[in-house]
Amino acid sequence: MAITVVGSVAFDSVETPVGRRDRCLAGAATYFSLAASFFTEVRVIAVVGEDFGPAEQAVFDARAIDTRGIERAPGKSFFWQGSYLDNLNEAKTLNTELNVFAGFQPKIPEAYRDSQFLFLANIDPVLQRRVREAMPDARLVAGDTMNYWIKDHRPALLEVLKGLDILLINDGETRMLADNSNLVQAARSVMSLGPRMLVVKHGEYGSTLFHKAIPNERESETFRAPAFPLDRVVDPTGAGDSFAGGFFGYLASQSELTPGAFRRAMFYGGVMGSFTVERFGTERLQGLTREEIDKRFAQFRELTHLD
Amino acid sequence: MAITVVGSVAFDSVETPVGRRDRCLAGAATYFSLAASFFTEVRVIAVVGEDFGPAEQAVFDARAIDTRGIERAPGKSFFWQGSYLDNLNEAKTLNTELNVFAGFQPKIPEAYRDSQFLFLANIDPVLQRRVREAMPDARLVAGDTMNYWIKDHRPALLEVLKGLDILLINDGETRMLADNSNLVQAARSVMSLGPRMLVVKHGEYGSTLFHKAIPNERESETFRAPAFPLDRVVDPTGAGDSFAGGFFGYLASQSELTPGAFRRAMFYGGVMGSFTVERFGTERLQGLTREEIDKRFAQFRELTHLD
Repeated sequence: MAITVVGSVAFDSVETPVGRRDRCLAGAATYFSLAASFFTEVRVIAVVGEDFGPAEQAVFDARAIDTRGIERAPGKSFFWQGSYLDNLNEAKTLNTELNVFAGFQPKIPEAYRDSQFLFLANIDPVLQRRVREAMPDARLVAGDTMNYWIKDHRPALLEVLKGLDILLINDGETRMLADNSNLVQAARSVMSLGPRMLVVKHGEYGSTLFHKAIPNERESETFRAPAFPLDRVVDPTGAGDSFAGGFFGYLASQSELTPGAFRRAMFYGGVMGSFTVERFGTERLQGLTREEIDKRFAQFRELTHLD
Repeated sequence: MAITVVGSVAFDSVETPVGRRDRCLAGAATYFSLAASFFTEVRVIAVVGEDFGPAEQAVFDARAIDTRGIERAPGKSFFWQGSYLDNLNEAKTLNTELNVFAGFQPKIPEAYRDSQFLFLANIDPVLQRRVREAMPDARLVAGDTMNYWIKDHRPALLEVLKGLDILLINDGETRMLADNSNLVQAARSVMSLGPRMLVVKHGEYGSTLFHKAIPNERESETFRAPAFPLDRVVDPTGAGDSFAGGFFGYLASQSELTPGAFRRAMFYGGVMGSFTVERFGTERLQGLTREEIDKRFAQFRELTHLD
């Protein structure tokens, strides 16, 4: 099944303890698309500027990602500059230039409308909602958000949550959204806002999948996937978006969405995140093979299973 | 196989968001012994004061724990007062009174000398080393420590590490001991100081078992166990010591220390930690049954396994 994703396609300049890169291809929709493309057909909705050239287009083409929904606008692409020198687990934003993203009005190509899977990457909830409403036939809708929208755009975000099947956010965002420091209670409270599933990403500690309680359903539907203990993290940028791409891409590749499919999707999410951080930007995803992915999936199993 | 444990038997006063308890039975050796007693025979070496009465003795007796090595000294027992009101994941120490612990000279009863398993709970490394040297026949020796000893008593601690098979510490302690923020690199560096295995406890995110690299050995011997996502943490005190008790107790109950036994031990560690935090002090461990333990073990498997 095809996935349509709406989000940012951008350029990042990052510095980490390992080194630095200037203006490398990035953005949530880019990481998501590349990761998901190993599992299923992916269609992107975004806006880029004149600095998005043939080299950037080639990255999407190499993974057969549909970019007809990437609008070219006069000006420069979204640009983010960040540093992980103080803390590899949390980026310090040095500079953000919205550029063409400031006036982004998502346009959905006709060819995208039959997508059964829809992913709303981290953008203004007003835009997320607009895309959601324009794709009423999507069978499974997942989305991401961040502290900025939770804090300062709560009413718009709450509207988006009503239309989501699955929300993917991190620990801090879950606690902030629920205003509750206990993760299990916070997860429950977030799901009462709409999504029937919540994936909480714990960074280097893995992720947890929560299901909304259904009477008589086993409580044990909660599922924890590990993160791969890596002895060298080059650049953490995009790990969460790559997780989402692996998770949602794998689900879209399945003929039936069984509990087992969701468990494996959590593992594939972790696998894709673990590859992304091994190199700067999208470098690792660009060079990756499905064989490497399945090999690491087997290592994840070995890492966590009793026998 | 019997375990001998040396450590503190103490009284704690704690306040948490749920409530408060004054002077409840606590101390690393107490949590460890109670947790391990569900798996194997346990013998304790500690010192207590005149405030340790029949009620406290009865807690050990009810679990058939050998207390002949608990010395009664004039004065009061070790006392700790802490608060989790600001942060449930980190205690703020309000008061520490060493009392009889200040002059603690561990005395090992003759009947303990054939213990094949030895656990050195978090006490002065000088005492840990003395006990280690007095038990040269112990087949498997594990231990714990804390930031205070790592920072201010490093040379003594390094001597202890040389005599350990397994060190159990948390993330922050691992990074501090190795002076390295990457956990995998830090683990490797800690194991180069002596222990051939390192268990890193990640609090609410579970724990990771690292093995010293042996040429030609599978890298995948690293193992991650989950922590149980709890919707109500009453008192986090003793979670780590209970983890150690479950982990080491289970190992001591096994006729062969296979890789599978270590994996299951990691799960049992997490199980015992998860019970401890459900009530104040040792209340939950006191009322626990082996049946409940095995039921939660099965839930842990369900929580993490793909099928």
